[in-house]
Formats: sequence, C-alpha cells, structure tokens
Amino acid sequence: MKVKKIDSGFILVFEPQEKVIETFTKFCEENNINGGIFNGIGAFDYVKIGHFNTTTKRYMEHEFRESLEVLSVKGNITEKEGKPFIHMHAMVSDTNMRVYGGHLVEANVSVTLEVYVRKFEEKISRKYYDEIGLYLID
Amino acid sequence: MKVKKIDSGFILVFEPQEKVIETFTKFCEENNINGGIFNGIGAFDYVKIGHFNTTTKRYMEHEFRESLEVLSVKGNITEKEGKPFIHMHAMVSDTNMRVYGGHLVEANVSVTLEVYVRKFEEKISRKYYDEIGLYLID
Amino acid sequence: MKVKKIDSGFILVFEPQEKVIETFTKFCEENNINGGIFNGIGAFDYVKIGHFNTTTKRYMEHEFRESLEVLSVKGNITEKEGKPFIHMHAMVSDTNMRVYGGHLVEANVSVTLEVYVRKFEEKISRKYYDEIGLYLID
Repeated sequence: MKVKKIDSGFILVFEPQEKVIETFTKFCEENNINGGIFNGIGAFDYVKIGHFNTTTKRYMEHEFRESLEVLSVKGNITEKEGKPFIHMHAMVSDTNMRVYGGHLVEANVSVTLEVYVRKFEEKISRKYYDEIGLYLID
Repeated sequence: MKVKKIDSGFILVFEPQEKVIETFTKFCEENNINGGIFNGIGAFDYVKIGHFNTTTKRYMEHEFRESLEVLSVKGNITEKEGKPFIHMHAMVSDTNMRVYGGHLVEANVSVTLEVYVRKFEEKISRKYYDEIGLYLID
Repeated sequence: MKVKKIDSGFILVFEPQEKVIETFTKFCEENNINGGIFNGIGAFDYVKIGHFNTTTKRYMEHEFRESLEVLSVKGNITEKEGKPFIHMHAMVSDTNMRVYGGHLVEANVSVTLEVYVRKFEEKISRKYYDEIGLYLID
C-alpha cells in the first residue's frame, strides 16, 4: 500500500492482492489512528460482506469471487478493546452493473483501491452492548 | 442520539428506534447548522425512499420494512424557508445483499446509525424553482 | 454550474442538462485543482457507466437513459498527463429503487447535482501502469 500524507489526512492506495481490512488495520495501528473517517473507490476480485441479524446477533455472510467495481467503501475508525477498529460498509457492482453491498468482513484488491482517510485529533471508542450484540460507539 | 463534538464537526450516533430525519433536523435546529455535509453507515428496520418524477413534480415513494444494512446515507444541510433542511440519499441492502436506494423520506434506526457531520461556517440556502418543482441550492 | 466557495472547498451545483465529467473537468482546469476529493447526490436522465475488464484491459460500458436518482457520485481529482483528471464512481436508482453502478464515463444532469469538493494543497499524480492497463495514483 502506498501512503500519501496530505494536510488533513492520508490517501491510501492499496496494491493488487492486498487484503483491505488487514492492511488498513495495520496502517492505523502503526500510525496510532483511533478516530477518523474514510471514503474510497476501486476494484476487488473477492469480497465477503455481511448482514447483521438482530435476533441471532450474528452476521450472515456472503462471498463474491468475480470482477467487481468498488463503488463505495466508507465508514469510521474507532478504538475497540484498546486497538484501532475499522467499521466499513461496501458496495460493489458486477459486469451487469448490478450492485451488492453489506458490512465488509474482508476483501481482496484487484487493480487498485483509493481511500481518503481523515484522522481526528480525538479518540472515538466502542463499547460492547450485550442486549444488541455489537460494539457501538460509546 | 449521542453527539460527539470533534474538531471539524460532529459524530452523531443514532439510537435504536430513532427516526432519522426528525432527529437529525432537530439536532441542526438546536445547533444552528444551516450549511454542512454528512456521511454515514448503520442499520435500519424501516425506510421510506422516493424517486422524483420530473413530469408530475412529485416523489414516488416505496417503503421497506425489514432488516436493512445502511450502506450509505449522505447529503447536505442547507437553509430552506429559514430553517435547517436535510437533503439525504440512502442505500440499503437486504439479507441477500441486494441494494435499494433513493431520496430518503424517513427511516427508523435498528441497531445504530453512525454519521459524520461537517459544519460549514457559511450558510447554504435553497430556493424554490417552480419550473422544476424542487427547492434547489441557490 | 453554480459554484459556492466555502472555507474548506466548494459546493458545485450542476444545472439541468449539464454533462458531469466535461463540466467538472473544466472547473478543475480553471481553478487549478490537481488534488482533491468529492462526494455528491442528485439526479440524472442519462448515464454511461463502465466495468474494467482486467483481461482485455478495457472498460465494458452500459448506458441508462431514464429518470435516475443519483445516490452517490464520489472519487478523487488528480493530475494525469499534466491536466486535472476526475476519477468518479456512481450509483443510481430507477423508479423501482433498484441500484446500478460503475465507473462513471459520462452523465447528464436532470434536475440537479450537488457535489462537495475538498481541494488538497498537494498535487496528486497518476502514472500509467502498462501491466494493469490503467493510470493509478503514483
């Protein structure tokens, strides 16, 4: 991943075959980012997305292994159990321009992923809410 | 709704069962926000979205009452007839990861909605354009 | 296109029948913007979107000529071969609230398109990668 520091944040340029959540989380850990937002576009050749089931309190997951334009990855960076946590939702399209989306579990970059990250001065924390079954912003 | 003030704006964390437009508009009124942008992700259990018909000059509306991941809410805050106005477009996905979207009329939060708001120093105003049938940014 | 200068950037309000890429590129040329990001919503009556084929190294393109809510246009502004270049991905919905999306080739505004542009102090450049067949951020 290439990183460009700009006045208000960073441009991250993911390389082919990089895993998105793994690479992004490592970047946040190394740069001590515990509060921020991001927004990006690009292309994947694999994505696992989820839908949270409020009854079972678990994510149902679907995998797509095909050429996918990434129309949106966005979300926030917070601190969860003392470490940076990426909350990302994604939308991708297939060769018929149909769009699929959900909570991003993991994805593999095909040609590129261009993400703008804005780092906050403030730390934003998550706390586990047992009745909901998720870590929510506290 | 929880509100976190950050240097450049706010993080709004909507609570389960809050109505989005109603709660967000009230927040803008109370904080005198008449110009800004926002971007968010989360989950709904109800959404009413619309599609503007340029012939009839009215929105056709559809309702979805089911578990929905919110892949994107975004838009802008302007002043319309002397009060803050939220212009929001939304995309949601069902349990098959299919995506639906339109102009957001109203929605109900299920587990959370995390929205970043950037407030402008400047006021942005809307004016009614009779030939189009909409309030556009002036 | 109306342009509103705000502290951190610009609000661009595209007028009915303006071509998006053509108008936006001209704006960037005239304002010497060679690095930035943008995010917007609105409505089109025509859009041509593409899907990059990594084997042929060409975009497959689809056209939609109908009333379309624009749920998201977003991307970045960079310098490519000495001139501003708009990299934009778009998602639109039809009257059934179904969503289509891809790499935006060109689009025609119907009632409005409201785009927030944040200009970077820094220039961001693209370079051609022959093995991929695209200009990527360098």
